[in-house]
Amino acid sequence: MPYFGIYNACANLTEGMILSAFFIETFGGYALNSFSSHRLTAERTFRYPNEYGMQRADTFTTTVTGAGSVILTSIPKNIRIAKATIGKVIDGDFTDPQDMGRAMAPACYYTIKRHLLDFNLTIDDYDLIITGDLSKYGYSLLKDLFLEEKINIQGKVVDSGMLIYQKSQDVKAGGSGCGCIGVVLSYIIRLLTTGRLNKVLLVATGALMTPCMLAQKESIPTIAHAISLEVE
Amino acid sequence: MPYFGIYNACANLTEGMILSAFFIETFGGYALNSFSSHRLTAERTFRYPNEYGMQRADTFTTTVTGAGSVILTSIPKNIRIAKATIGKVIDGDFTDPQDMGRAMAPACYYTIKRHLLDFNLTIDDYDLIITGDLSKYGYSLLKDLFLEEKINIQGKVVDSGMLIYQKSQDVKAGGSGCGCIGVVLSYIIRLLTTGRLNKVLLVATGALMTPCMLAQKESIPTIAHAISLEVE
Repeated sequence: MPYFGIYNACANLTEGMILSAFFIETFGGYALNSFSSHRLTAERTFRYPNEYGMQRADTFTTTVTGAGSVILTSIPKNIRIAKATIGKVIDGDFTDPQDMGRAMAPACYYTIKRHLLDFNLTIDDYDLIITGDLSKYGYSLLKDLFLEEKINIQGKVVDSGMLIYQKSQDVKAGGSGCGCIGVVLSYIIRLLTTGRLNKVLLVATGALMTPCMLAQKESIPTIAHAISLEVE
Repeated sequence: MPYFGIYNACANLTEGMILSAFFIETFGGYALNSFSSHRLTAERTFRYPNEYGMQRADTFTTTVTGAGSVILTSIPKNIRIAKATIGKVIDGDFTDPQDMGRAMAPACYYTIKRHLLDFNLTIDDYDLIITGDLSKYGYSLLKDLFLEEKINIQGKVVDSGMLIYQKSQDVKAGGSGCGCIGVVLSYIIRLLTTGRLNKVLLVATGALMTPCMLAQKESIPTIAHAISLEVE
């Protein structure tokens, strides 16, 4: 199977779905998108190996150990990708690897704003806007950014990182990782197929950092890509 | 600028150029592809930190510290990307991280063969076929694979890893990394613009491994993507 590898940290899901949708619109056929994240691997690669027993801050998000695949096809189905917005790299000058949620909020805000402007929409044109892995603190910052323009996103925008775990689980600010919005998407698809939702904007968010960058006192560049899933 | 991150190890260059060409063919405008590799970073990430002073095998390739960008546009120019072949993941059961060249040769062979079959061509339809970073041992294996079909690639296929360094430099089997074929491409472009070459097939090769996979006794999956650059 011809294969392209992609990397936009936890924004992989929507990057892959945009590229796939674009390919099959021209060439037809099928495109398979796979995504995965693993808690211990993410800790080792992006923060500290779990064995170090680092103390977790309240803003810390817990990477979802999860994987999945989305198959897209050019054959018309009940649900389609109707619109897409490719994000740009936003650096909000955040430097704390234990607070990725707030670092990603400005990129998420930019992409949603850009999407609404490009297609002349308001948030009320969507039944639900679902963000990637901002979790508690990132979501709060996103809410504040929209409130500055007198837009209240509460109830309209929900974050996968705040949905994925039970309250009883000690995950600090919530969930993160490619698997976070990916696993939640399977639930959203069910709500779309059963008619409980008709129009959803999916905004995966990614922090494009490595521990090495932070050791060099660089800040965390972030990105978000959006796709709208609409029931025909 | 809207941004997509991609990752196919040292095959990034042609992956990016295929995706970009595809985008601008539909949407017009410009697409900027950037690539880079760094010797010490690559050693640390994919083999061992340089400070460990590991003994290098003869098959060892030296990552090129190099970076560059290619701008593609939908406005007709002297040189165009005429054809492309997306590779598939090939695992030849190689496990030695000091012998990436031979590990990648089967993927390179597959992509060139697939390209020639898909477009009904022979290697003689190209002035030059330039591979990514097989270097001395990988190139030798690629030559053997083609010889099994009575095709002699000597003189027609050249490898960037064997071109990039001087003989006097102690780089063992040659060069590797995203920057290897990328930096050589700038020279190829000059040969195309000055009319010394008219039709070139560019085949970047990548080893999709991490040291962790090898510690787990996994073999090295590899890939290669091809594009043809043709003077109009």
